[in-house]
Amino acid sequence: MRHFKAIVEYDGTDFAGFQWQHGARTVQGVLEEAIGLRTGQTTRIAGAGRTDAGVHALGQVVSFSVATRIPAERMALALNSALPRDVTVRHVEEVDAGFHARFSASSRIYAYLILSRRTPSALLRRYCAFTPFALDLQAMRQAAHYLIGEQDFAAFANELTDEQTTWRDVSRLQIRGRHHLILMRIEANAFLRGMVRTIAGTLIEVGTGKRCPEEIPEILQSRDRRRAGPSAPPQGLFLLRVRYGARRIGARHHSEELSRWLQR
Amino acid sequence: MRHFKAIVEYDGTDFAGFQWQHGARTVQGVLEEAIGLRTGQTTRIAGAGRTDAGVHALGQVVSFSVATRIPAERMALALNSALPRDVTVRHVEEVDAGFHARFSASSRIYAYLILSRRTPSALLRRYCAFTPFALDLQAMRQAAHYLIGEQDFAAFANELTDEQTTWRDVSRLQIRGRHHLILMRIEANAFLRGMVRTIAGTLIEVGTGKRCPEEIPEILQSRDRRRAGPSAPPQGLFLLRVRYGARRIGARHHSEELSRWLQR
Repeated sequence: MRHFKAIVEYDGTDFAGFQWQHGARTVQGVLEEAIGLRTGQTTRIAGAGRTDAGVHALGQVVSFSVATRIPAERMALALNSALPRDVTVRHVEEVDAGFHARFSASSRIYAYLILSRRTPSALLRRYCAFTPFALDLQAMRQAAHYLIGEQDFAAFANELTDEQTTWRDVSRLQIRGRHHLILMRIEANAFLRGMVRTIAGTLIEVGTGKRCPEEIPEILQSRDRRRAGPSAPPQGLFLLRVRYGARRIGARHHSEELSRWLQR
Repeated sequence: MRHFKAIVEYDGTDFAGFQWQHGARTVQGVLEEAIGLRTGQTTRIAGAGRTDAGVHALGQVVSFSVATRIPAERMALALNSALPRDVTVRHVEEVDAGFHARFSASSRIYAYLILSRRTPSALLRRYCAFTPFALDLQAMRQAAHYLIGEQDFAAFANELTDEQTTWRDVSRLQIRGRHHLILMRIEANAFLRGMVRTIAGTLIEVGTGKRCPEEIPEILQSRDRRRAGPSAPPQGLFLLRVRYGARRIGARHHSEELSRWLQR
């Protein structure tokens, strides 16, 4: 048995989400089918982020184990030839048995795209949220500031279960605007279910002036989902990238890691 | 009767092209239907560029005449509420009876987008051409240089008729690359049928090394369509903007116009 890590891009429009569901078209479903077609084996893949219906990914990471003689460098091509056009395997590499796309991940980066102009966009309709209102980016950045750090995000989560902790560590939350497009980029060790879209929905309300940035600490403290804004629509959300502990010590991030370690 | 000019964005994926066709879904067809629904009148619109099936537009311009009491500034909203989501009217203004979207246009600007990387893109599959080969942008720019100016573009046109002239004036042809995306931007007074896609297809062959830039003058001189490269696929093409004589003398372009006039 060999173990693989794959980086996957997909257009979430025509999927009922990432996770396998009986009778529904899911990203996990089509990936497992493609692996089955190319290796002749049934396997179960694990995904780093279980994106909802309509949510896209540029850098979803999946892991799977399969007995095959296909060389790792040929695997992406082999899988792509068996995949529908709305899912693309970008890269495949062989990993240790201990690697797990979800549990080994050290952080996830999501982007949320908002179009703010008078008319919606025919070309971007599947890839952004739309608001006819102008957004105050400065107010949104102030609000974003309160969301950074290790905190209890219960107020921003859907479907809480008692067992799990609702603390998450948001290490970065940037708001950038260019022409009519506003990009929110958020990184955290992990996200609660619905968390990114609730943050986006709340920040949009701050941007339109419906809320002020100073409400954010109160919302966090309340732990009450009803206090936060609405969930922004799925088509604006993209899973950009997943980081793994091991990668950060790789050549590219070595100096960064070292300088952080020295500053402890 | 009042006369209108509208700027229109559309996703060409699910259209059989701009121009009305019996029994086919066309951009002209859905726009005329929306105007009919909102004004109660049957009208025929004129488009600046008759884009093919699958070709997109960010700034197509259409003109039409209709007796209505809808104020011009409410017209975009009125039409959008009657249009499918893959067509958006960006702006409507009232114009003189003499204005014609096609015949009054002084130039058209098209963009052609190419993705050059190992794997195709699930998210961009409807909005770019794909090549797994690396492109030599320097060679493409050299080839592009030969295409600029007032020349006979018969070798780059499909479906020629004897009556029409095949001379066109290409005033700008830029090639820009960023990450894996290559953007070709071309401006001309007008284009022959299939001309932008044939130029794109030929430049892609120059980029992959299949042709050298120096072949371009020979191809132009031959006036033979078989000498040029293949037509690049429609989904990479966008009608970006249409310029009108009157607009170029507007505030924004006044100094530019003046300096040109002085240099005559």
